[in-house]
Amino acid sequence: MISLSIISRMSKSDIIPHQHHLSQPDRSVNKGHQPAVIWLTGLSGSGKSTIANALEETLNHKFLAHTYLLDGDNIRKGLNSDLGFSDEDRNENIRRIGDVAKLMVDAGLIVITAFISPFIEERKKVRDLISNGCFIEVFVDCPLEVCEKRDPKGLYQKARDGLIPDFTGINSPYEAPENPEIFLNSNDLTLVQNVQTIIQYLLDRNFISAN
Amino acid sequence: MISLSIISRMSKSDIIPHQHHLSQPDRSVNKGHQPAVIWLTGLSGSGKSTIANALEETLNHKFLAHTYLLDGDNIRKGLNSDLGFSDEDRNENIRRIGDVAKLMVDAGLIVITAFISPFIEERKKVRDLISNGCFIEVFVDCPLEVCEKRDPKGLYQKARDGLIPDFTGINSPYEAPENPEIFLNSNDLTLVQNVQTIIQYLLDRNFISAN
Repeated sequence: MISLSIISRMSKSDIIPHQHHLSQPDRSVNKGHQPAVIWLTGLSGSGKSTIANALEETLNHKFLAHTYLLDGDNIRKGLNSDLGFSDEDRNENIRRIGDVAKLMVDAGLIVITAFISPFIEERKKVRDLISNGCFIEVFVDCPLEVCEKRDPKGLYQKARDGLIPDFTGINSPYEAPENPEIFLNSNDLTLVQNVQTIIQYLLDRNFISAN
Repeated sequence: MISLSIISRMSKSDIIPHQHHLSQPDRSVNKGHQPAVIWLTGLSGSGKSTIANALEETLNHKFLAHTYLLDGDNIRKGLNSDLGFSDEDRNENIRRIGDVAKLMVDAGLIVITAFISPFIEERKKVRDLISNGCFIEVFVDCPLEVCEKRDPKGLYQKARDGLIPDFTGINSPYEAPENPEIFLNSNDLTLVQNVQTIIQYLLDRNFISAN
């Protein structure tokens, strides 16, 4: 039995005593890339989810990277299902996402997030939380009128009809990043071009490698 | 430039259109093992953290697995730093840990948790949350008097002195698992034996493989 022979070769020297903790670099050894948080921010309808999904697929299939995508689908239905959309709850929403991203970076993953995250201050808090150099802010720029025309979820119409209070861009501000690591434009550039821009950034800074 | 040639070979066919989401099986392709939540439960001082750390190191070094350990150190200081130790807060603590474990399983990781988690009902909630067959409850059994004698953090003494209300085993109950996937005993068995028991379970059920 191969499995038993493996087990029988284990000895006390294989087992690490109390208080030792595996570190992020330890966990990265098996991964072949560095961890990162790729934080997409932009208006509803700017293309964050589209870019995030295409990026994750590319990182997995082309670069064999270990990734995870945090977005409204898996966060608002699970961990943050107790939160609403008041200012306080929106801040708590982003705080928890930041802390989960931090845990996943500690696990060695490349974490992609796709949330409007409209406030400079809340994005700065997440940046300060993530280990130095791992936080990559990506501004997905797109004119409000284009986003509103796309309106993939019908949310702009609802906001215009007064059904959604504090909807970013309509009756709540969007504070664009002043100095993001990556600037994308989903109106003038294609999806492929935008994903390429992020991939190239990761290659240039050795988060991932081409071989 | 190798990296540029890789990029230039990307085409629209490499980029997955809107609404596609990478699934857990997609993310497992690069990992060579199945995801799981190895949920250690037991009294304070029963050896959960010691076993969890040794298990994570073994899974990483011997089986090249992609793991993460959730424990008080990284949860109570980060994501759940807003929670105290009231019944309500302890339930919320475990709820959030369960949801984070679920996200990490979705990412393809083997998640190890080391929390007292004294209540059958809260452990059942986490079990129900995690995808079928991925939740492995591990009861780290050890007589209360042995745990109290070990008292690695001095908490039993504080509880006896009336400084900690609702301390499990002293003035709050511990509800032992009735039918855990794995039963360990940290009083009669060694650390190596207990880690071996978990590894063997994972091998037998093809969560990990020996080669």
